[in-house]
Amino acid sequence: TDCLGLVPRIVDELSKLNEDPRVRGVYLHLAPALLTGRVISTLAPEKDVDGRFRAGEPRVFCPGIEHLCGPTGVSSEGQTVVLVGADGAVKVALRCLMERRGVVTLNGHKSSESLQEQVCVCVCVCVPYPDSSVPPALTPSPDPYSAVLCVPLSPWSSSDIQISRAQTPKSVQQLAQEIGLLPGELEPYGRNKAKVRLSLLERLQAQPDGNLVLVAGITPTPLGEGKSTVTIGLVQALSAHLKLNSFACLRQPSQGPTFGVKGGAAGGGYAQVIPMEEFNLHLTGDIHAITAANNLVAAAIDARMLHEATQSDKALFNRLVPSVNGVRKFSPIQISRLRRLGLSTTEPASLTAEEVRAFVRLDLDPSKLTWQRVVDTNDRFLRKITVGQASTEKGHSRETGFDIAVASEIMAILALADGLGDMRVRLARMVVGTSRSGQPITAEDLGVSGALAVLMKDAIKPTLMQTLEGTPVFVHAGPFANIAHGNSSVLADKLALKLVGRDGFVVTEAGFGADIGMEKFFSIKCRASGLRPSAVVLVATVRALKMHGGGPNVSAGSPLPREYIDENLSLVTGGCHSNLRKQIEIAHLFGVPVVVALNVFKTDTAAEIALVCRLALECGARAAVPCHHWALGGRGSVELARAVKEASAAPSHFQFLYETEMPIVEKIRTIAQKVYGADDIALSPQAEAEIQTYEQQGYRSLPICMAKTHLSLSHMPDKKGAPTGFTLPIRTVRASIGAGFIYPLVGTMSTMPGLPTRPCFYDIDLDPVTEEITGLF
Amino acid sequence: TDCLGLVPRIVDELSKLNEDPRVRGVYLHLAPALLTGRVISTLAPEKDVDGRFRAGEPRVFCPGIEHLCGPTGVSSEGQTVVLVGADGAVKVALRCLMERRGVVTLNGHKSSESLQEQVCVCVCVCVPYPDSSVPPALTPSPDPYSAVLCVPLSPWSSSDIQISRAQTPKSVQQLAQEIGLLPGELEPYGRNKAKVRLSLLERLQAQPDGNLVLVAGITPTPLGEGKSTVTIGLVQALSAHLKLNSFACLRQPSQGPTFGVKGGAAGGGYAQVIPMEEFNLHLTGDIHAITAANNLVAAAIDARMLHEATQSDKALFNRLVPSVNGVRKFSPIQISRLRRLGLSTTEPASLTAEEVRAFVRLDLDPSKLTWQRVVDTNDRFLRKITVGQASTEKGHSRETGFDIAVASEIMAILALADGLGDMRVRLARMVVGTSRSGQPITAEDLGVSGALAVLMKDAIKPTLMQTLEGTPVFVHAGPFANIAHGNSSVLADKLALKLVGRDGFVVTEAGFGADIGMEKFFSIKCRASGLRPSAVVLVATVRALKMHGGGPNVSAGSPLPREYIDENLSLVTGGCHSNLRKQIEIAHLFGVPVVVALNVFKTDTAAEIALVCRLALECGARAAVPCHHWALGGRGSVELARAVKEASAAPSHFQFLYETEMPIVEKIRTIAQKVYGADDIALSPQAEAEIQTYEQQGYRSLPICMAKTHLSLSHMPDKKGAPTGFTLPIRTVRASIGAGFIYPLVGTMSTMPGLPTRPCFYDIDLDPVTEEITGLF
Repeated sequence: TDCLGLVPRIVDELSKLNEDPRVRGVYLHLAPALLTGRVISTLAPEKDVDGRFRAGEPRVFCPGIEHLCGPTGVSSEGQTVVLVGADGAVKVALRCLMERRGVVTLNGHKSSESLQEQVCVCVCVCVPYPDSSVPPALTPSPDPYSAVLCVPLSPWSSSDIQISRAQTPKSVQQLAQEIGLLPGELEPYGRNKAKVRLSLLERLQAQPDGNLVLVAGITPTPLGEGKSTVTIGLVQALSAHLKLNSFACLRQPSQGPTFGVKGGAAGGGYAQVIPMEEFNLHLTGDIHAITAANNLVAAAIDARMLHEATQSDKALFNRLVPSVNGVRKFSPIQISRLRRLGLSTTEPASLTAEEVRAFVRLDLDPSKLTWQRVVDTNDRFLRKITVGQASTEKGHSRETGFDIAVASEIMAILALADGLGDMRVRLARMVVGTSRSGQPITAEDLGVSGALAVLMKDAIKPTLMQTLEGTPVFVHAGPFANIAHGNSSVLADKLALKLVGRDGFVVTEAGFGADIGMEKFFSIKCRASGLRPSAVVLVATVRALKMHGGGPNVSAGSPLPREYIDENLSLVTGGCHSNLRKQIEIAHLFGVPVVVALNVFKTDTAAEIALVCRLALECGARAAVPCHHWALGGRGSVELARAVKEASAAPSHFQFLYETEMPIVEKIRTIAQKVYGADDIALSPQAEAEIQTYEQQGYRSLPICMAKTHLSLSHMPDKKGAPTGFTLPIRTVRASIGAGFIYPLVGTMSTMPGLPTRPCFYDIDLDPVTEEITGLF
Repeated sequence: TDCLGLVPRIVDELSKLNEDPRVRGVYLHLAPALLTGRVISTLAPEKDVDGRFRAGEPRVFCPGIEHLCGPTGVSSEGQTVVLVGADGAVKVALRCLMERRGVVTLNGHKSSESLQEQVCVCVCVCVPYPDSSVPPALTPSPDPYSAVLCVPLSPWSSSDIQISRAQTPKSVQQLAQEIGLLPGELEPYGRNKAKVRLSLLERLQAQPDGNLVLVAGITPTPLGEGKSTVTIGLVQALSAHLKLNSFACLRQPSQGPTFGVKGGAAGGGYAQVIPMEEFNLHLTGDIHAITAANNLVAAAIDARMLHEATQSDKALFNRLVPSVNGVRKFSPIQISRLRRLGLSTTEPASLTAEEVRAFVRLDLDPSKLTWQRVVDTNDRFLRKITVGQASTEKGHSRETGFDIAVASEIMAILALADGLGDMRVRLARMVVGTSRSGQPITAEDLGVSGALAVLMKDAIKPTLMQTLEGTPVFVHAGPFANIAHGNSSVLADKLALKLVGRDGFVVTEAGFGADIGMEKFFSIKCRASGLRPSAVVLVATVRALKMHGGGPNVSAGSPLPREYIDENLSLVTGGCHSNLRKQIEIAHLFGVPVVVALNVFKTDTAAEIALVCRLALECGARAAVPCHHWALGGRGSVELARAVKEASAAPSHFQFLYETEMPIVEKIRTIAQKVYGADDIALSPQAEAEIQTYEQQGYRSLPICMAKTHLSLSHMPDKKGAPTGFTLPIRTVRASIGAGFIYPLVGTMSTMPGLPTRPCFYDIDLDPVTEEITGLF
């Protein structure tokens, strides 16, 4: 019986469906108690698809999805369901439906008390997998369109998290099996993600590498131009549609912006990593591990300075090398410090007073500490702080600050390390400051590097997830793209290249515009990994091209000016001839062929799209294709996938832009002139002095990691297109010795974002019954 | 062939084994290439146990483990192995050995280049499981003694991590199956731990609860008296030896002390949670989630104060309730704020200017903010800091500080919440400060409570691990025992009570001495959970009893005075008649029977042990037994397990110490007089004013969570025994409204530990090849 009083509401909803011209058919599946005469008679006969269904009529429910039905037509096993009930209950029922690929009755759902709440209606199409042909090793999930499409009736548009949730990911064990992992090589973290053991690399040593494809972009607007969605759409097209093994390697996003302005970073539309909430929150804890490791170094620095300031050499020595059962012994990490001091002894008693002093006193110069603390939160009040103001710290207060966790040097190390041993070495040589006598002081000097490696021992394993179409993704590392190199990890790329095999593709993404992310990918990451890309995909949008062609200012939060909504071929031409041409030229400096991927927005006209593709070829691109992955998933990127496959097959002539043995200044000048188009560089006196110090300390041969705005090829964010006739100012020069690069700062780089007046978190919540998250996008 | 030149080293090691009187037998299992005539002839015939083994001679290898062989004797399947090779390689071989329960050859290990390093020798005994009788639902792992015992030859003592590593834990899936979980109720995090879904509670709703046993302690020395090891030894005895279903519920330790002074917290010796390194590091990320949630609140507070200080009411309103496609709408969390302001509208345009002002301005009083940031690192320099000193924060700097993460109110909430919905409600009502007009401002007012619930949605699921003997453990929550209640979670207790069933036992531990941890367990946790304990295990040591009986000062880092090493019955008597008697009386205030567990140290004499047991009975304990779990595992706690079983069967008369409706002052006085033995309390004027404020704000009926030293029943850490004739001073009174208690501070509580001159991290490292951790203890 209708004890919950649902019938009147169902009748009400059905009346609306009758009148809604977009709804062209409804199939009722309700508990028998609810299928009353009144309900059955309410539904208009022309909307009752149950009969029509079997007669083979197209299952079309709303405009805009007609093209999704595909050539195979309707299977007799197809089921269409109207779910009626409370919002939460419908979601639960939907999940059951998707898992069983059958029909569900609402009265079978136990949290029926929630049916008392607001009634909502969902229309779902559920059909069997389209066909069983699968690529050699990877099995794509059924195309989300043909598998199950969930269209909330109101509003007719779906948010990213709704699309993500409408697809049931295969279990990570199944995914792992499909890509050829052994069970012992997988460490699942829940149902949908797993860490992959590095022993895999050793097992597949003899396997030839696949093709490495880099996704970069033209200089973006502040709104972003969709590199992540292109990356995901491309692997979906390669795997699920061209039946080629492929892997996407993505960065783990910082949690800070998820709750601030930006929202999630798992892609969007029908080109996403799922479940997107797991991608965006905590993941497998790598950034938390980095935060813990980074802050342990910071605590060790301040505590050590306090202890050195308040204890005699003898007291320090007695505590650092305590007598245990009458025996004093150096620990291995202390012996390592003795070696750096030039002392070969291992016998504590043999040290002279002077040697004891040199051993126990790091003598850090408080004004030359470079190590900052980190949090993975947008907390602007931590940008500049004074620590040590409690009376227990005896007046040893000092100014310092917090960065966002992804800006930690340890994140850059995670991205560049090629194994546990290499990571341990890099962590040990991180320089945290300088002694009063000018010596660099390292994490190893602090005695903390072993503990850092222990904290990071799981973080070094890449995390396996999947796209909306069930193709594999590694999520690993996410170094800040301005003060670090902004690329995902060397290890993820290496593992993926082995897994896809000779004919497969690994698509990896570089942050910011190609002048920054791609240049650093080639100069820093390729140098560290020894890997060479076979093609670059350069992402462009009509919007960004119009901006570079002279269009008005674009900014987040303001409505887009008309020029960006109406057709304007002249602005598009200007953008192609300036920024797009220059970015293609930059890729050619490295000898790598370029495929331009035009990320199509619904406001782009056919003429604009055709123009971009024609001009891109004129500017030297090997191919230029429009992409519709956001709306169509992999199907919308098939043309791009074909172009990438063709470009990768061509012979490659990769070369570095500069030799590392060049003087630091010359390396910076080379990048400024050849990549950015500057006339020259101008070093501040401070920068000159810093460079001199690094060269004296033996760091001359490190590559350069420029810290420059991504909003212009120059250092001036408002100079769009391809600026010339400027001198690039170098304000100051810093070094990440553990990661292994020198980073000159062009202007001021904020390493700690803030929260706006109304942060994203106002909309983020979860349903305590279904545990589903709302408001992430 | 011996390409690595191992034979001379093996010969060298065998010569040492020949001469070592402690080694009574060696079985050689080496790769054929290494079993040269020289090797075979080197081993002294009387040490060659291979033949003797089969003849049934006792397999005894070193003194101190003779009693471990048990009555079953030696099985013919028993295998003894000498592993010879580099340290890392031996460890890997050992793991293989344990997993296969067979023999391994070293040359089968692929990282053979590491054999070039230092040679080490391990002796292992590997025998099949003793017998196959298992308790109804839980299958204990094979007793670690009979399963595999790994004794590094030098030193002859083993560290906790060596013991932990010598046992191969069963997979968490197997453990889950043994305790009756369905596969869908488990979310594995790697091989050895998993989160358990709360839906389990619903499924087992009809199942009767088992017996709840609380482990508390007498007032401890600063060295700790072993409550965790007693807890683990007790469940090992109950499950693996008495064949009764049992569960231990433990707190997750802070990572800060792991790298500071204290080391790990997984128990010790043969009463441990394994793998102890996973227990101590990251676990399943709950503390990281708390840190993220706590610091999001902090960032939201400071950003909001800045935005309110720099924007008009209108600008704030336009940003907080923006027009999207021409429509302004309040989000649900904003409607919730409107309701608290007494406004029933949901229409933004209908607000008067005054109402807009009330809505947009939280008007937080900077001098009355109580929310602190947290890190899970011992970072003393963050105790008191000034934030907001960057020019971007426009001069809005203020003093604040960081606590250790486990001191966050969100940790206390995690421990007390009984479901996702309850946690969401508690997070929302957390008070972060007071407005200038005196109104409490909550996380819900900041709009952040939904995001907090999202960050905490996985943390709310308890983590399943196992003891060294394979019995199940929930690790969940670890609120600071001084400013919070210091008990593990209500949800872990509830889930465990269902899983063990009517005749089973759940053993849960309360922090600090019984006057603090146990009192809070009864007054706060039992009130929140509705659960009632059937018995209290009160842990005592001869060492602590001697201290209470008038022994000299005991402090960490100093050698123990002679009184604590030599027999001293008079000091023991003094301790029993003072502190032990008083702590038993406290438990009796609540009507719960007490079993005294004497945690035996190797220096304790038989007379001392007998005396404690006799006097404990005289003081009212229902039973008093010595425990040897540290040395013997569950086998050493069988007598305790029997006593606990018997005490739990007796009728229980649980009662609360105070009614929550009493005035706050009266509740504090009741605890001070009845529990601590004070004559009265003395409130500072500040404390009186604070209490008055809380009563006005409607928080009168919350229970009390005293923040007092754990080193004395009084507020004076040096007053041992059972002090009387003192007045308890209440300096200030704070409130955790989300967690749901008022906490009066008796003296100053440090909520951020520091690092010593030589922190633990000096010894912590990992082997990059085997990934094994050293130096955790």
